[in-house]
Amino acid sequence: MAKLLVFGHQNPDTDAIASSYGWAYLEREAWGRDAEAVALGEPNEETAFALDYFGIPAPRVVESAVAEGVSQVILTDHNEFQQSISDIREVEVAAVIDHHRVANFETANPLYMRLEPVGSASSIVYRASKEAGITLPKEVAGMLLSGLISDTLLLKSPTTHKSDPQVAAELAEIAGVNLEEYGLALLKAGTNLASKSAEELIDIDAKTFELNGNHVRVAQVNTVDIAEVLERQEEIETAIKSAITAEGYSDFVLMITDIVNSNSEILALGTNMDKVESAFAFTLENNHAFLAGAVSRKKQVVPQLTESFGG
Amino acid sequence: MAKLLVFGHQNPDTDAIASSYGWAYLEREAWGRDAEAVALGEPNEETAFALDYFGIPAPRVVESAVAEGVSQVILTDHNEFQQSISDIREVEVAAVIDHHRVANFETANPLYMRLEPVGSASSIVYRASKEAGITLPKEVAGMLLSGLISDTLLLKSPTTHKSDPQVAAELAEIAGVNLEEYGLALLKAGTNLASKSAEELIDIDAKTFELNGNHVRVAQVNTVDIAEVLERQEEIETAIKSAITAEGYSDFVLMITDIVNSNSEILALGTNMDKVESAFAFTLENNHAFLAGAVSRKKQVVPQLTESFGG
Repeated sequence: MAKLLVFGHQNPDTDAIASSYGWAYLEREAWGRDAEAVALGEPNEETAFALDYFGIPAPRVVESAVAEGVSQVILTDHNEFQQSISDIREVEVAAVIDHHRVANFETANPLYMRLEPVGSASSIVYRASKEAGITLPKEVAGMLLSGLISDTLLLKSPTTHKSDPQVAAELAEIAGVNLEEYGLALLKAGTNLASKSAEELIDIDAKTFELNGNHVRVAQVNTVDIAEVLERQEEIETAIKSAITAEGYSDFVLMITDIVNSNSEILALGTNMDKVESAFAFTLENNHAFLAGAVSRKKQVVPQLTESFGG
Repeated sequence: MAKLLVFGHQNPDTDAIASSYGWAYLEREAWGRDAEAVALGEPNEETAFALDYFGIPAPRVVESAVAEGVSQVILTDHNEFQQSISDIREVEVAAVIDHHRVANFETANPLYMRLEPVGSASSIVYRASKEAGITLPKEVAGMLLSGLISDTLLLKSPTTHKSDPQVAAELAEIAGVNLEEYGLALLKAGTNLASKSAEELIDIDAKTFELNGNHVRVAQVNTVDIAEVLERQEEIETAIKSAITAEGYSDFVLMITDIVNSNSEILALGTNMDKVESAFAFTLENNHAFLAGAVSRKKQVVPQLTESFGG
């Protein structure tokens, strides 16, 4: 059987790396297929913490499926083509394991597609492993747990599904970690922004959405101190303006998320600030505004922008 | 909980009616939701045979989800919006159960989506019922079996998945029918074309595909005698030309499928006949050509057209 590449989205976060790692394991162990988990970018600091903790090398970074000689790929934690590998339209998508909205995705042939509105793609991989009767090794369970913790901010995000706490408890048991202790350590590993240049900071976890013809970049950084990040506003705005010019974004929306108190500050620049303001019913002052209770890009930012930008 | 409407595609075939009927049953029995199976058109003669055989009334035909007062819908056996309810963009798609390619589909929010490259949407509904630990009543199993038989031409189409024969055997057992006998009777019930006007004939099982900006209508009729259908070519071509003018199709491709010998005659009219010919490497003579071994629109016609029309 021809080789399959399994990968999460560009600018991979922990769930992207973990779900592709776990799904490739299932492809090999449960279904006997030749599957390799790769990544569309280097792991961020949070993911590096998880990989190091469970003794797993970082996945190989690939830029082209065709150059790898594969004709079939499996996408985890994303489906939108602009978030995927550069030559996604040149290969066949054999499967998608995801927990996002569906958009800018199409295939010529029927495929396996498993989307559930749960807290992480890793949650779905875990459920599939149980259905397949596979006992996960400690390090695979540990990575899937890390993906779930990362995407749900330790089960506190509104994206957390009612089935996720049980998934987390089972994975923590297999992985041999204390959920709360390991979870907080993992999240804190991702808040070390001081070591990052402004260019790096706005690209840690950023995705582009096509909203009614506009290319809207929505980035998110986690912190334990919003004010500390805002001290670098001038430098960050310069980086955002450069990205807008270089990449042709219409707008750039940065969520600065306080993982302890579960709020976000929104810093936004671009040509549709009226639509950004109406999306969140707030007024940007000096290009930013507070969004109480908002921690989820997927539930609390992207649908509101989609609605405001119009279909 | 708010009411959910569950429905298959426009011009419903047996799998569209059966899979929506079965999934609505699961929503109610397995998950306690208020779900009603409806249809986007009247059952065809094959489906009417199955409904009558298992003593089920035809599903209510609806034209607008908004008019029904629902805000969430579940799609079975389709995902492309142009094959769905007229106001699909006005409501939220809560779930999709399908076995087709994905195209012209998008959501603002995460959803439950279960696609498998198997012979029928009914096969997936049956698998889900087993996973949920639900014992299907005879009539639900009978309808799901009918959907699978219809879509795979009694397991002979190349769309038949290796897991489908076992699904068919299990469903036949629950439904209390002999698979071969019931299957042939069901398929033959759908080949009574003499009673149909040409306008009706080209609309029995027809779907529109957007191929590189072209609106391509691909219809299929089942018969036990291709020549008998071709005797009505002039009348059928007049109906096709009227449909092209009225609906703005760029092309109309009619598959006349011999269910006994598993071949199709292709009758095609429109502005891209060069692309239709190159798709199948044949030459249309008097607007038609023989396609040996072709019985599946999904596997043997649409991908070839998609490729030929270009992305």
